[in-house]
Amino acid sequence: MWPIDCIEHKRDGKVLTKEEIHRFIDDYTAGRIADYQAAAWLMAVYLRGMTAEETTELTMAMARSGDIVDLSSIPGVKVDKHSTGGIADTTTLIVAPLVAAAGVPVAKMSGRGLGFTGGTADKLEAIPGFRIELPEDQFLQQVRRMGLALITQSGDIAPADKLLYALRDATGTVESIPLIASSIMSKKIASGADAIVLDVKYGDGAFMKTKEDARKLARMMVDIGRLAHKPTRAVITSMEAPLGTAIGNSLEVDEAVDALSGRGGRRLMEVVRAIGAQMLLVGGKAGSEAEGEQMIDDLVASGKGLAKFKEFVKAQGGSASWIGKRLLTKAPQMFTAVCTDEGYITEIHGRALGEIAMAMGAGRARKEDPIDPMVGIRLFKELGDSITAGEPLFTLYGKAGADMACIAQEIASHIIVQSQRPDHIEPVISEIIT
Amino acid sequence: MWPIDCIEHKRDGKVLTKEEIHRFIDDYTAGRIADYQAAAWLMAVYLRGMTAEETTELTMAMARSGDIVDLSSIPGVKVDKHSTGGIADTTTLIVAPLVAAAGVPVAKMSGRGLGFTGGTADKLEAIPGFRIELPEDQFLQQVRRMGLALITQSGDIAPADKLLYALRDATGTVESIPLIASSIMSKKIASGADAIVLDVKYGDGAFMKTKEDARKLARMMVDIGRLAHKPTRAVITSMEAPLGTAIGNSLEVDEAVDALSGRGGRRLMEVVRAIGAQMLLVGGKAGSEAEGEQMIDDLVASGKGLAKFKEFVKAQGGSASWIGKRLLTKAPQMFTAVCTDEGYITEIHGRALGEIAMAMGAGRARKEDPIDPMVGIRLFKELGDSITAGEPLFTLYGKAGADMACIAQEIASHIIVQSQRPDHIEPVISEIIT
Repeated sequence: MWPIDCIEHKRDGKVLTKEEIHRFIDDYTAGRIADYQAAAWLMAVYLRGMTAEETTELTMAMARSGDIVDLSSIPGVKVDKHSTGGIADTTTLIVAPLVAAAGVPVAKMSGRGLGFTGGTADKLEAIPGFRIELPEDQFLQQVRRMGLALITQSGDIAPADKLLYALRDATGTVESIPLIASSIMSKKIASGADAIVLDVKYGDGAFMKTKEDARKLARMMVDIGRLAHKPTRAVITSMEAPLGTAIGNSLEVDEAVDALSGRGGRRLMEVVRAIGAQMLLVGGKAGSEAEGEQMIDDLVASGKGLAKFKEFVKAQGGSASWIGKRLLTKAPQMFTAVCTDEGYITEIHGRALGEIAMAMGAGRARKEDPIDPMVGIRLFKELGDSITAGEPLFTLYGKAGADMACIAQEIASHIIVQSQRPDHIEPVISEIIT
Repeated sequence: MWPIDCIEHKRDGKVLTKEEIHRFIDDYTAGRIADYQAAAWLMAVYLRGMTAEETTELTMAMARSGDIVDLSSIPGVKVDKHSTGGIADTTTLIVAPLVAAAGVPVAKMSGRGLGFTGGTADKLEAIPGFRIELPEDQFLQQVRRMGLALITQSGDIAPADKLLYALRDATGTVESIPLIASSIMSKKIASGADAIVLDVKYGDGAFMKTKEDARKLARMMVDIGRLAHKPTRAVITSMEAPLGTAIGNSLEVDEAVDALSGRGGRRLMEVVRAIGAQMLLVGGKAGSEAEGEQMIDDLVASGKGLAKFKEFVKAQGGSASWIGKRLLTKAPQMFTAVCTDEGYITEIHGRALGEIAMAMGAGRARKEDPIDPMVGIRLFKELGDSITAGEPLFTLYGKAGADMACIAQEIASHIIVQSQRPDHIEPVISEIIT
């Protein structure tokens, strides 16, 4: 009897048909299947898994449960980029203007941060006057005119995913590769992308704890993209340490501008180059990865990426007078910690730093929490760097009244300096899945 | 975070602690855990299983979720008997007075039938005047006075099991051995039993389809009994064919009286003897299985069991004038079908006959359906019997207006007569698990 037979089929490890999956999602979204039935089904999916074909149908059913953004009025291949979430990850802010400057239109919806990871929408809102919410016609017009617009999710994008995500969160069924993959891909497809480049992170500061799980998730999403006729590529990146050196919304915008000005950190630029090259490739502007990476370097060196960023900020109402002057971050209190040892940075606990920054007000523990764009942490060293006694290690940007010495001490405990150069530092990029 | 961590532990295949299980059941019963969380947990239990210790804690938590009947005012070992449900199964009606006559007190709560299987409470209500609902003090007093009372479940017995059973029914999580075992045993323990004898059936007409599953379920319940300090034994019986020859409530009461009068069918008496011997053993009245079986035979031969049945029926307000005269069943229409072939009865499809009888009004498709105690089917042959052309095969007892010829034809299609004696007839009793 429907829907119990569909629950039983998955419980017994059968492959669900396209019809079963679409009917289940349609009926659940319409309230014809109870939450408790969907919960039992989700647990069965969690424990039995899904094939790439089933996951693709789940993705398409969720994508079609609400509005599908129509980007067809924009010429060219509209490439979307998605990160599974990390610490000090400003890649979108850097790569979007770079590829837009190369002629790949970027019409992107970005989320807000939750927990210890940031969200691009929150970062852009640190810019005075910046409007992250645009009416659809204005959003499309801006992309047609200048090749780049970034807004928060608008309209009724993948409501089935919203409902199922809330249910997964309450029933211990979050960490399932087919459920994560379909959740991400349904939103990307509903947002109108023609092609998708994914940054799938693993490690302490990421959703996926191991490289193996990140690779499985990436493989599944690339498969969904292929089956859904949306060319998709995934870059597997390490989140064992923060990607960049800035944690906190205005600090991260400053870091993105630095990167577009040719002063980007080693690890951050490696990811920018890889993601950017893939976007240029699927967008039809580069013939090879190497050509794509060279184009990214040239766009940074020529200042064309930075110019596009300025144009984009102005187009969405933001002030651009601060750009290039690192004037965005103005916190009531600043505290710089210096290193007392000599040696090498062998560990930076990204997740712990993300949680400290969140507790200071840079992020949200709950969806309704307010954000303070000015607080955060700026590191002066990256993983593997050498340091001498007396060199600055980080600057803390805090609210009035914050106990800066106490917070700084906690931060320092998460940056490990050892006298020996580390034997092995996990590379930032381990694999590109196409 | 509670209760998600408990769901996740079972999802990940961990053994839940006593505290986790009791808290989960207490919180669910009190409405502090949502149905969708319990549904995800049930699916995790279904797919990951539970140890005997976990299942025992689940049983005890459900037993303690409501009233626990106090039988301590009745001297002796109070032995309960439970069947997982079958066709033409009047064992309780026969065995309860037999063991009571031997001095084992039987203070039993019986359920009503649902679907194609009958319930003892419905059968007893076919006796004019019989009162199946007694106040608790009267119930206890009757057992103290004459060693036997049979009522429907009274009070608030295992409400957690009621809630979870309804949820399992809607979420594809019924057929799980730990969940079935804990559901049965929680009700037996809450009903106050000191010791329990189980009839675990398998085959087409039973809940468990295979002997292997029946054995697993029996093993689990015997383990629960041991861990809960309630000595428990299980008899594994075949439900490939009806157990007795009567299907329908008043017909089954007539068959029970026949059996107590020494005219019981071969298959039925085999089970009566096995279950009765186990009850006498755990009740401390027999020293061995063989002695127990001999006692059962003697109690039938001496008429002591029949006398106890009469006393019991009268004590609960029922008429006893019909006993021994086969006068209970008075249907508006009767139709006897005779065999046209010569040979052996090789198959009797119990489940199909149960469903036909239910459709005629002998049972309920839904809980709220009324029952007609007079309709049913009486077979003249058992599985393996020889038959000659012209011998009566069965009598159909129907309502006024029923299309008797048509129903009889359908019944006949489920009784297979073949010219060759069957090589192998599945024995009724395959194993006793202690």
